[in-house]
Amino acid sequence: MSTLAVAGGRVLLPHRDDETRSSRASDHSIAEADVLVDADSGEVLDVGPDLVDSADETLDASGGLVIPGLVNAHGHAAMTLLRGYADDKPLEAWLQEDIWPAEAELAAEDVAAGTRLAAVEMIRSGTTAFADMYFHVGEVVEAVREAGLRARVGHGVVTVGKDEKAARADFAESLSVAEEFDGAADGRVRTAVMPHAPHTVGTEYFEEFVPQAREAGIPLHFHLNETEAYLDPVEEEAGVRPTEYADDLGLLAEDTWVAHGVHLDAGEIERLAETGTTVAHCPASNMKLASGMAPIQDLLDAGVNVALGTDGAASNNDLDMFDELRDAAMLGKLAADDAEAVDADAAVRMATEGGAEALGFDAGRIETGAKADLAVVDLEAPHLTPQHDLVSHLAYAARGSDVRHTVCDGEVLMRDREVLTLDEEAVRERAEEAARELVARAEG
Amino acid sequence: MSTLAVAGGRVLLPHRDDETRSSRASDHSIAEADVLVDADSGEVLDVGPDLVDSADETLDASGGLVIPGLVNAHGHAAMTLLRGYADDKPLEAWLQEDIWPAEAELAAEDVAAGTRLAAVEMIRSGTTAFADMYFHVGEVVEAVREAGLRARVGHGVVTVGKDEKAARADFAESLSVAEEFDGAADGRVRTAVMPHAPHTVGTEYFEEFVPQAREAGIPLHFHLNETEAYLDPVEEEAGVRPTEYADDLGLLAEDTWVAHGVHLDAGEIERLAETGTTVAHCPASNMKLASGMAPIQDLLDAGVNVALGTDGAASNNDLDMFDELRDAAMLGKLAADDAEAVDADAAVRMATEGGAEALGFDAGRIETGAKADLAVVDLEAPHLTPQHDLVSHLAYAARGSDVRHTVCDGEVLMRDREVLTLDEEAVRERAEEAARELVARAEG
Repeated sequence: MSTLAVAGGRVLLPHRDDETRSSRASDHSIAEADVLVDADSGEVLDVGPDLVDSADETLDASGGLVIPGLVNAHGHAAMTLLRGYADDKPLEAWLQEDIWPAEAELAAEDVAAGTRLAAVEMIRSGTTAFADMYFHVGEVVEAVREAGLRARVGHGVVTVGKDEKAARADFAESLSVAEEFDGAADGRVRTAVMPHAPHTVGTEYFEEFVPQAREAGIPLHFHLNETEAYLDPVEEEAGVRPTEYADDLGLLAEDTWVAHGVHLDAGEIERLAETGTTVAHCPASNMKLASGMAPIQDLLDAGVNVALGTDGAASNNDLDMFDELRDAAMLGKLAADDAEAVDADAAVRMATEGGAEALGFDAGRIETGAKADLAVVDLEAPHLTPQHDLVSHLAYAARGSDVRHTVCDGEVLMRDREVLTLDEEAVRERAEEAARELVARAEG
Repeated sequence: MSTLAVAGGRVLLPHRDDETRSSRASDHSIAEADVLVDADSGEVLDVGPDLVDSADETLDASGGLVIPGLVNAHGHAAMTLLRGYADDKPLEAWLQEDIWPAEAELAAEDVAAGTRLAAVEMIRSGTTAFADMYFHVGEVVEAVREAGLRARVGHGVVTVGKDEKAARADFAESLSVAEEFDGAADGRVRTAVMPHAPHTVGTEYFEEFVPQAREAGIPLHFHLNETEAYLDPVEEEAGVRPTEYADDLGLLAEDTWVAHGVHLDAGEIERLAETGTTVAHCPASNMKLASGMAPIQDLLDAGVNVALGTDGAASNNDLDMFDELRDAAMLGKLAADDAEAVDADAAVRMATEGGAEALGFDAGRIETGAKADLAVVDLEAPHLTPQHDLVSHLAYAARGSDVRHTVCDGEVLMRDREVLTLDEEAVRERAEEAARELVARAEG
């Protein structure tokens, strides 16, 4: 057995629910402790004082806070290639005029380049697990394997505008891809079937394929009520709100997580709670595309598990989950018209345990037996001084560049701000080149 | 004459208004150029190719973008001591239960410690000029002098709850402080009279002191319509909206800048436009305190100059103007329910030229004859790859930690991420100690 000690710092211990919402006390607790990791099994062996002597290797966490690796629960990693390509446009025009024409030119090697760029960015900013809904999933899996990250991946399905044969083939591919890659990269890759949204996939295809996915034990992930434009097509055809429609089709379940959930009425929130479905909140994307403000405190009050996602880099424009933490806490207050809503502790829980629960990973918390997915945040910086409340700092003041080390599945992915698993400079150069060629093809 | 060349990079050239709002073209332009600075006068001598040979000293901008130093147009710098001390509370409760009791214990040496901490944080994140409304202004001025920053400072006045003598003394102090310190630190310090807000300062004191400030050529800065609770006291007493009340008292003018402006009706926006008053928008603070969404696109459409401010670190919780840029572009879209609103270019203008105009500094743009206040943003990072649009990157993807060098008034304040004018570690230690003692006094 080979062991790693993350030593000399303080540790953010798991969130434990209680009924209080105090401004200063956090539901998380902080302890001065080392974290001992079994690098072979990728699990935490122990959390406590003086564990460094028993370890084969040490990561210096002095002056730092050891946190669970952040979980990015909704995104399209390879869209890093389109970061900054088309901004300041509403969702439908942005998709139809810019994003879809570019994606139509997207080749497997572009997905390879864009996903590696995303992986470097995520490792640098303390993210250890992510969800990915995209195309050329084999390339995504290979990038995840090389990067050493953990991911729940799938092929995105759209059937509107396709003939029956093409539509069935697209959904069938999502299912076969999920079966093919589940368990890849030493089990760090899990899969899901990923129909784009209730209004972009025909009812008959949900009826045909979702039972097959359930039979195979494969989770579902889709967009739900991202903008007001998502509501009408379903309400007009099915006569119910999209969440009710999805529930009636058997799409909602404990292993389903939906992205966005911006426009939800009380009945829909109840359906999400009853079925144990997670909402992956994407506050930055919802702001940038003017989609609206998701009712996050209402979801939390109803007992819905909430995770956080960056969405694709083209609508964010980065994959820094510390931005998402801050945005979730900030926007949650505006949405609720209540400065006590979505407090720092709740935001941190969403970005860690909430995300791990959504993606079905035994991670998101630093605890004996859990997966050793963690990051060390350097606290010795002016913007993190003074240290009245470290949970507040994670939500409101820290940023991705404060991450000193990143560990996933017991493997060190970044040490002292140097990414070890990928050649960062080569990844950036390849991505820059792929992006320029992609845009030239799309515009040519 | 001693000269400095900021050489080998690209330069963000000034914003020039035109009628188009394209998603890809920016009103700013980017050129490969060097910037030659007269370190004695603190002015830009030239912007163009191959200026390095004529310089006494060089700052390497290769792989970077030279931008105007960011201008933080509203804040309370020493409140860094209360960063994370009390979060997730609405403005009135937060002020009355947490902030004011702590500020009541604030001594001059606390302001000295907190302002130095703020200065280090601002220099690190590319801010070269800031506005400061606080107490113990002499300490603020001394910190600005040492740090090498540029600032417009003043003493904040509140008369409600005070007897006439104390109220008059407070406003008189704001005036005398403004007269005493104007032009300090080789002219980098300018001053303003800073009554807190229309509803927290009695009409008679405005009537007595504002003409004196005007007579002395001293600008005014105050909070305007930050929350809905700011409106009622004025409307009940004066029978008009606060902006009209302020205008009738002669408070609005080209050298006045107001903070927040969240709840403004059409008539108020017109008054601000007619008088040439600047609004310093504080999106993060407005979200965190659930104050609301300022109508920034409406202000821009009306021709109002808009600047950006972080507000105090206790309601943000950092002083990183890149967060503010992103928040302004993001929240501006939600407020307008329009993803085209407050585009990247507009946000960048607010953080540079808009702020410099508000504070009356000949800065905020890189141009021959303007003050040499600038920062070099390192573009060689995964979250800034690919480089489709660098203005988009400034608004949506860059963060304070991307700043490599900071220059103010021709002096290098930070070189290769090392702050040269202040001892960063000593500043952090002193601030941590001052913060702990302050809180102990406030809670004891």
